[in-house]
Amino acid sequence: MSEIITVIAPVNIAVIKYWGKRDEDLILPLNDSVSATLDTSIMCAKTSVCARPEFKEDGIWLNGKKESFYSPRLQNCLREIKARAAAEKSVNEDFLQWKVHVCSENNFPTAAGLASSAAGYACLVTALAKLYKVKSDVSSIARLGSGSACRSVYGGFVRWHAGTNPDGSDSVATQIADQAHWPEMQALILVAGDTKKKTSSTVGMRIAVETSELLKHRIKHCVPQRTEEIIQAIKEKDFPKFAEITMKDSNQFHAVGLDSYPPCVYMTDVSHLVSYVIHKYNEISGSIKVAYTFDAGPNACLYLLEKDVPQVISLIKHIFPSSNPDKFVTGLQSKEEPLSPVFMSICEPQKQDLIKYVIHTKVGDGPTEITDGSHLLNEAGLPKAE
Amino acid sequence: MSEIITVIAPVNIAVIKYWGKRDEDLILPLNDSVSATLDTSIMCAKTSVCARPEFKEDGIWLNGKKESFYSPRLQNCLREIKARAAAEKSVNEDFLQWKVHVCSENNFPTAAGLASSAAGYACLVTALAKLYKVKSDVSSIARLGSGSACRSVYGGFVRWHAGTNPDGSDSVATQIADQAHWPEMQALILVAGDTKKKTSSTVGMRIAVETSELLKHRIKHCVPQRTEEIIQAIKEKDFPKFAEITMKDSNQFHAVGLDSYPPCVYMTDVSHLVSYVIHKYNEISGSIKVAYTFDAGPNACLYLLEKDVPQVISLIKHIFPSSNPDKFVTGLQSKEEPLSPVFMSICEPQKQDLIKYVIHTKVGDGPTEITDGSHLLNEAGLPKAE
Repeated sequence: MSEIITVIAPVNIAVIKYWGKRDEDLILPLNDSVSATLDTSIMCAKTSVCARPEFKEDGIWLNGKKESFYSPRLQNCLREIKARAAAEKSVNEDFLQWKVHVCSENNFPTAAGLASSAAGYACLVTALAKLYKVKSDVSSIARLGSGSACRSVYGGFVRWHAGTNPDGSDSVATQIADQAHWPEMQALILVAGDTKKKTSSTVGMRIAVETSELLKHRIKHCVPQRTEEIIQAIKEKDFPKFAEITMKDSNQFHAVGLDSYPPCVYMTDVSHLVSYVIHKYNEISGSIKVAYTFDAGPNACLYLLEKDVPQVISLIKHIFPSSNPDKFVTGLQSKEEPLSPVFMSICEPQKQDLIKYVIHTKVGDGPTEITDGSHLLNEAGLPKAE
Repeated sequence: MSEIITVIAPVNIAVIKYWGKRDEDLILPLNDSVSATLDTSIMCAKTSVCARPEFKEDGIWLNGKKESFYSPRLQNCLREIKARAAAEKSVNEDFLQWKVHVCSENNFPTAAGLASSAAGYACLVTALAKLYKVKSDVSSIARLGSGSACRSVYGGFVRWHAGTNPDGSDSVATQIADQAHWPEMQALILVAGDTKKKTSSTVGMRIAVETSELLKHRIKHCVPQRTEEIIQAIKEKDFPKFAEITMKDSNQFHAVGLDSYPPCVYMTDVSHLVSYVIHKYNEISGSIKVAYTFDAGPNACLYLLEKDVPQVISLIKHIFPSSNPDKFVTGLQSKEEPLSPVFMSICEPQKQDLIKYVIHTKVGDGPTEITDGSHLLNEAGLPKAE
């Protein structure tokens, strides 16, 4: 029998957005994307795996609920990890025949546009890789689970290369800079809703590829240039440049959604108000101090430097009052600072709870094995929670 | 002294959108656009003009309020009409020296994205043209007042040619088909707000031209093809084709706004809900029966055929309940028809008054001189209302 392996893995929030596949089964994207990986101490997926000769079938429990193991994406990940292990001869053949149990949970709401599937598949694939002692890069296997999961396989700032090979072998993630490179970089996630989204990313991308004429131009002309520019901005720690490209690319991704037929709209009035407020804040500040970016949902992710966090939190609290102010900001601690009067005029306070809560986090490391024994599976290889 | 000339002129709602100027002073667009002219019996601007030797200065009253005549756009229109009259020798030189009084009003809210300036300038220029007996096409002069005003100079379906001449002489409107060509074509304008918009069209266009990479692609590749296709659809009275292009072009125009930096956002959650509902309605109907289009504001304009109006009004009443249901739909009369149960499931009724009221109208004629004596100026050439 195998020991139980437990891994935690981070979410990542893209600054150059992935939208559109060139191969739906292999999850190969039409364009490169770039993201920052966020600290696992604040948001993470946690996954325990083990393989036993006595297991009758592969089993998976997600957030406390038994799910089917027979999703194509899950099957693809397990098959490819085993194939890699066989190629590397990292474990013996018997071991590869044993069935596996997987138990996974997120410490944040699923499918609310908070990159839960990215963290989840990065976690699963990393845990399986450790179980089968696979040593090579597994980002292309995480990609088979959820495209953006490949970026959560590394910490710091990460590039997902679209690649050109039909088999996807060159569609992998690489690290641009590790988490220690730009330690001042933090993030505030403004949770505007935690309901499931109307159009899944998979469907939204498919419609965009089939119908948006602007998507073609974005992929061919806009993204390649932006990718090079933002990598340079990251390497040079040029925050205004990083922030400007981040905001422009978020807006262009949502523009392409709107140009799809029927249109795919993920931003709401609240999202657009956040965008408006950040532009005004930067304008009054005289330089770009905060960047917003929106994934396939209404939540804003703000990237900003540590020194600007107290003022920006005060601004958000002013405009978006909460019925539960003590629990409004979770995650990292930061100093309190009253809002400078010059920023008071940006926008009147809105009605309560348009922003439900804020997660304060920072750029962090990639997946990590947990060695304190806090597994999600018990000695028998069954979920502890059941 | 001259007689008083009074003209009414229509609004027009574009189906291929104008967004972006190649010359800001001459108001020359980067792309062709196409619109339908809407019936003046429902919505119109009304303008009275006269010229008198005893007037000390040019004077203008808009919606009951004296305004400055020294706006560059107003000056350009008056100067060019007089130059045209001089070239055509249509009036004597003394007449051209006399100062003019202009009194104008709209029978609908100004600057709420209801094309008020288009109707206003088309009305002014047509009235001045009649005053100075100008016989030639004046669409290029209306264009100097407000770009889209040139399309309100004709009835039916109208194309505004971008033109290529630096002086704008070929940036004129031409009629695609007159109002009698497709008499079944009607429109429902869903007024979601009548407050002034955040970013004026002029500023929004300038930002788009300076910053949107997608705008270039739209202008070069998308609009030329769509323009030809929609003109053919109009000529062949192919409603589904007309409607599909109309919706796609509206979405692309707003996509370009979102791709601008900072982004220009005119649609709201209510606008997107209307779009969603129309797509579902068409899907359930098994063919495209309604098209939405949105200008630089949250209001939807729905194009549809007369036979489908009762059902669509019932759908709108179901989803957007009004606190004043008797006055919810204004304009043309239509039969009442209960909503088919199959459409009930499209969307739950929303909270009251998200849509304030609906204007039911149809495609109509161009500007018309009023000969019943109901001038806005009295015998002395001063506003009657004062």
